[in-house]
Amino acid sequence: MGKVLVIYDSRTGNTEKMAFLVAEGARRVEGTEVRVKRVDEATKEDVLWADGIAVGSPTNMGIVSWKLKRFFDDVVGELWGEIDGKIACAFSSSGGWGGGAELACMSLLTILMNFGFLVFGVTDYVGKDLTLHYGTVLAGEPKTEEEKEACRRLGERLAQYVAIFFDGKKELLEYIRTFEGKFKN
Amino acid sequence: MGKVLVIYDSRTGNTEKMAFLVAEGARRVEGTEVRVKRVDEATKEDVLWADGIAVGSPTNMGIVSWKLKRFFDDVVGELWGEIDGKIACAFSSSGGWGGGAELACMSLLTILMNFGFLVFGVTDYVGKDLTLHYGTVLAGEPKTEEEKEACRRLGERLAQYVAIFFDGKKELLEYIRTFEGKFKN
Amino acid sequence: MGKVLVIYDSRTGNTEKMAFLVAEGARRVEGTEVRVKRVDEATKEDVLWADGIAVGSPTNMGIVSWKLKRFFDDVVGELWGEIDGKIACAFSSSGGWGGGAELACMSLLTILMNFGFLVFGVTDYVGKDLTLHYGTVLAGEPKTEEEKEACRRLGERLAQYVAIFFDGKKELLEYIRTFEGKFKN
Amino acid sequence: MGKVLVIYDSRTGNTEKMAFLVAEGARRVEGTEVRVKRVDEATKEDVLWADGIAVGSPTNMGIVSWKLKRFFDDVVGELWGEIDGKIACAFSSSGGWGGGAELACMSLLTILMNFGFLVFGVTDYVGKDLTLHYGTVLAGEPKTEEEKEACRRLGERLAQYVAIFFDGKKELLEYIRTFEGKFKN
Repeated sequence: MGKVLVIYDSRTGNTEKMAFLVAEGARRVEGTEVRVKRVDEATKEDVLWADGIAVGSPTNMGIVSWKLKRFFDDVVGELWGEIDGKIACAFSSSGGWGGGAELACMSLLTILMNFGFLVFGVTDYVGKDLTLHYGTVLAGEPKTEEEKEACRRLGERLAQYVAIFFDGKKELLEYIRTFEGKFKN
Repeated sequence: MGKVLVIYDSRTGNTEKMAFLVAEGARRVEGTEVRVKRVDEATKEDVLWADGIAVGSPTNMGIVSWKLKRFFDDVVGELWGEIDGKIACAFSSSGGWGGGAELACMSLLTILMNFGFLVFGVTDYVGKDLTLHYGTVLAGEPKTEEEKEACRRLGERLAQYVAIFFDGKKELLEYIRTFEGKFKN
Repeated sequence: MGKVLVIYDSRTGNTEKMAFLVAEGARRVEGTEVRVKRVDEATKEDVLWADGIAVGSPTNMGIVSWKLKRFFDDVVGELWGEIDGKIACAFSSSGGWGGGAELACMSLLTILMNFGFLVFGVTDYVGKDLTLHYGTVLAGEPKTEEEKEACRRLGERLAQYVAIFFDGKKELLEYIRTFEGKFKN
Repeated sequence: MGKVLVIYDSRTGNTEKMAFLVAEGARRVEGTEVRVKRVDEATKEDVLWADGIAVGSPTNMGIVSWKLKRFFDDVVGELWGEIDGKIACAFSSSGGWGGGAELACMSLLTILMNFGFLVFGVTDYVGKDLTLHYGTVLAGEPKTEEEKEACRRLGERLAQYVAIFFDGKKELLEYIRTFEGKFKN
């Protein structure tokens, strides 16, 4: 039974909407248990519990919000060196394209790698002009169906990797590798 | 007289279109001399000549193209340690939003910082959902007027910084700082 | 049977020495098959073959060398979207501490993530002042025993993850999580 | 009269020691006024006052500390879009080489670029194996004379750029460009 945790911070509600969609995507993979926690409610037990973790932050000055950083510094920090080998990914909503959402994802992935997690992005395009190679990034809230799917696809892939690597569902790996690139420009 | 060099690589022509718009923006600043060079034509003399340099790459696997990297490794590399203090910025076209264009810009800025250049992005929004905080990034070619303006604005800001810092036009600095944020979400 | 590929570029021989030590570390994990390939000799078949890939580059202008970039753009690029889910990591030798070796590793990890690989660093310290949180980084060649161990540990961890995630040796995951931090400042 | 601000956070005192050395280096440039502020004491007036800003953080989970992030999010954030064009740089102390100090500097530079600042590193080597291409990075506290000089050199270069670009001392630019690379491997 795969365990997926979605942790997020949100000021405007945009990243929160993304978080719920990421969780929805994770639930697409049968047998996945999903927890969604706002950073203020998350505990180190949540992190211990999970095999896979998706972390979402608003893009604040090009990187992770200070509240999420404090959570990883002070709360998850106590577990440092004892929780290596989990699977992790990132998502972020910024004020606009070019506003740093990819860099915010990379700052999250930098933190997650520091804890010894394996981090990933997704090669798939979810529409003609939208992909999630370093995590899901949006300008503002998820509006179009493609933008919503970019969130869901991240959670789905996380749950798939958990199923493949922790629950031995190797056939999923081949499935993941059948990307047809139909939306790629 | 400010000297601005625009260097670019392009496979599909998208980044090339951006390069011409960046150059157009640089010419908005009176007294600026502008050179535009495809990476195959650029020489180390071009780099020596310029006070300000904008570098554009297609987003290839999330970072700079190998041709541009080779140019900086092998050609500009001969000048390393002797050309510190120039002003520089980056732009990139990727296959889609979330495809790594911001990271490609950061890889360019990493190279440019290595040469001792001062690198920058622009706080301005050029439309409701588009800014250029780490250089100009687009999905595909510049299509809308806002996307074209995101290219021009980068070149304009580069030429302004050259005018301020190399030609002593201090009044431009105040002008730059009057961003009204009218498009900011 | 885990399959680990070590690919590297090297000008001075420093990164090459690291590559052989990374391979040595991978062989510590029983049943691991290891290939070491200089970028000029590596083929896309090597990449297809491997479950885990360690990529090493000299730190050139703060990022990956152009030769390695060309390999991923032009050779591995043909496989893009069909080889997701491999495990990958990075190593780099720079001219000195502070010279960009961590950033070079991150540029490699950016490329590797673009291919859909899961990337990781190691929480362990291999000495009082040396760790490999984002891959192994050195100033110059591996000289001290600690520096050599930083290379070996990377390969070992890669082979361990391959054994855990591809060959189902779950007990190794607990072993990895027993980091005692004895060298941590 | 150049105005240089050094802002830092510190848990163990290591980054604080670096901050004082960075300030010492800035004072080498005649006519430079220098303020050093711990993040808890710094105000937005300090930032408004300065032409050049050096920001130092302990490397916490590979990026900036949450306290410094909060300062930029909540305090300096009020000035966003009105203070473009300042010169800025970064420094960081980590638990060990390979622990993320360069990435922590890049996270600081990402924040500083977001505010429209021009950021830089230094091409000079201060010893056989130590440079500061993306800001000054150390493992632990500054111990050797070279490590101390790596801190001072950063502040000195910041003050030099302020003198060149804000006070018109163009002759300093040529001086900066005379790097002899005597320590370069």
